[in-house]
Amino acid sequence: MPHIAVDAMSGDSGPSTVIPAIKDLLQNYPDVTFHLVGDSHILKSELQRMHLQDSEQVKIHHASQVIGMDEAPSQALRGKRDSSMHIAIALVRDGHADAVVSAGNTGALMAMGKVFLRTIPGIDRPAIAAFLPTTTGRFLALDLGANVDCHPEHLLQFAVMGSILAERVMGVAKPRVGLLNIGSEEIKGNEQVKEASLLLRAARLNFIGNVEGSDIYRGVADVVVCDGFVGNVALKTSEGLASMISHELRASYTQGIYGKLAYLVNRPILQRLRKRLDSRQYNGATLLGLNGIVIKSHGNADRYAFARAVEVGIAEAKHRLTLHIAEVIQENLNPVVRNSA
Amino acid sequence: MPHIAVDAMSGDSGPSTVIPAIKDLLQNYPDVTFHLVGDSHILKSELQRMHLQDSEQVKIHHASQVIGMDEAPSQALRGKRDSSMHIAIALVRDGHADAVVSAGNTGALMAMGKVFLRTIPGIDRPAIAAFLPTTTGRFLALDLGANVDCHPEHLLQFAVMGSILAERVMGVAKPRVGLLNIGSEEIKGNEQVKEASLLLRAARLNFIGNVEGSDIYRGVADVVVCDGFVGNVALKTSEGLASMISHELRASYTQGIYGKLAYLVNRPILQRLRKRLDSRQYNGATLLGLNGIVIKSHGNADRYAFARAVEVGIAEAKHRLTLHIAEVIQENLNPVVRNSA
Repeated sequence: MPHIAVDAMSGDSGPSTVIPAIKDLLQNYPDVTFHLVGDSHILKSELQRMHLQDSEQVKIHHASQVIGMDEAPSQALRGKRDSSMHIAIALVRDGHADAVVSAGNTGALMAMGKVFLRTIPGIDRPAIAAFLPTTTGRFLALDLGANVDCHPEHLLQFAVMGSILAERVMGVAKPRVGLLNIGSEEIKGNEQVKEASLLLRAARLNFIGNVEGSDIYRGVADVVVCDGFVGNVALKTSEGLASMISHELRASYTQGIYGKLAYLVNRPILQRLRKRLDSRQYNGATLLGLNGIVIKSHGNADRYAFARAVEVGIAEAKHRLTLHIAEVIQENLNPVVRNSA
Repeated sequence: MPHIAVDAMSGDSGPSTVIPAIKDLLQNYPDVTFHLVGDSHILKSELQRMHLQDSEQVKIHHASQVIGMDEAPSQALRGKRDSSMHIAIALVRDGHADAVVSAGNTGALMAMGKVFLRTIPGIDRPAIAAFLPTTTGRFLALDLGANVDCHPEHLLQFAVMGSILAERVMGVAKPRVGLLNIGSEEIKGNEQVKEASLLLRAARLNFIGNVEGSDIYRGVADVVVCDGFVGNVALKTSEGLASMISHELRASYTQGIYGKLAYLVNRPILQRLRKRLDSRQYNGATLLGLNGIVIKSHGNADRYAFARAVEVGIAEAKHRLTLHIAEVIQENLNPVVRNSA
């Protein structure tokens, strides 16, 4: 019976997006209790609007403050003790919830996660891990921007955690783990990646070696590991190109009558493509390595996307992800690090 | 009167692609002489096939060996003194040509360039620089994979060289130079980028600060600077995604009669899009920082693409790029590096 804490004031539209998203999940997840955190007046009002005021699956927890999207994490930590984000995380810390989902300020979420939940013993730096589409399905990528200047040991920890997530939560047997690298034979990557490669090879992972950026979308690996700086740049660059392609396509279609006609004919196909690559489908990044399940939704997520993020939290809670990571780290990671130090 | 040395044995198809490409350029560049390097029998034969045996603009230089695409650069350097790549580079070294163009092994080309041409005084590491499309035109990106673990000073050198190329060869007044970085306010990038940012700000550049991966395709900068590892991963990831989008589109179109009809209607638009984003248009990366103009074409370049790469060489030769970089480095770079050391 998972309990999910939801930062109901988070995201561009707060409760007016969050609560409809929760409503959409009630039927498929009858055993889940959703703890909505935020201004209780506003929440009650929105719940009434959605006819959920009597739902046994929905609880309200009052919080008087909200973290702003542009607020410096350090500020948020010090200044706003009664923020919906803090209270929601505290529910996990105190064992009243198994996971917390927020669409708020990533930096603040991570900072609060580190302070109030701390990391799983043996994990130095939590990573931002998210699913991305491939031609055949999807893969998990981490770190997508939480840490810059990672040491090889951090990449090893990312690999181990990512592998457990893929196996336990995605149901992939022996997930293929790849290290994001450049293809040059003579160079074989920078110092960090070269050393990380040795660590991953020695660990109990299905390590398939280096993967190039051009291969990850073809599904060559189930888990792709990289430094947070590299991961964030790669992700943002891909998004920028997809955006440009989208822009060019739309511009082509609006040119003249022919263009508009072609668009009408083409619309179902474009819609199918958009759905396939839809970032909304994959909304919900995990702050992997915190001692509790913390899911970050995009700030501009709509009802559908936010629900997908909550589902990630539910899945990780049901499969007791944090516990499994802690167990594996205890058994496996320390001996590897000690031996290779 | 530029002289261009062409490694005519390079690329997937060698002379049967190179020579038609040269033929296509003769008319637009009546003052350019093309020095084709390779097996003289094969070259003469191909020239005859293209009716170019009497052209005043085409010369042949014999070379008995060819560098293989998978050959280790160090091997190529030691073992093959009479390769078409080496002889072509030697033409530039000895002042018989102003630029060399090759579709061969990048590592070997860079290694030979460093050994036989050396770097421009003041430049430590030559970078691979290439043009990429934006929604409004194009931008120059470097380093795309020649160097990993760059120091901040190297990024400064890339910025200076890239800016000169954009200004002198692309004709951009005060090229906007951006440093590829992640967007997080609190982190502000890794150590290398933070320090490079200070150096670029102090230099005589139109430095616009950090740019995110999602912005570069929107044309926010004329020159984007990054470490070779990051640049290569970002480029390959973008290519991988574009490839996947292409794949998904084609898959959608072949599904059923509706799909096929839609494809027929849509083909001109897809073709326009393909042309817009066509990597063939942008073929021709510069090994920027060598003491001579060295252009690398993709190995699988066709006639059209290889001609584009040769044009890059011609433009850089006409604008005396190497000379300008040397002058600017002399005047500007050393004081900056000394002051900030």
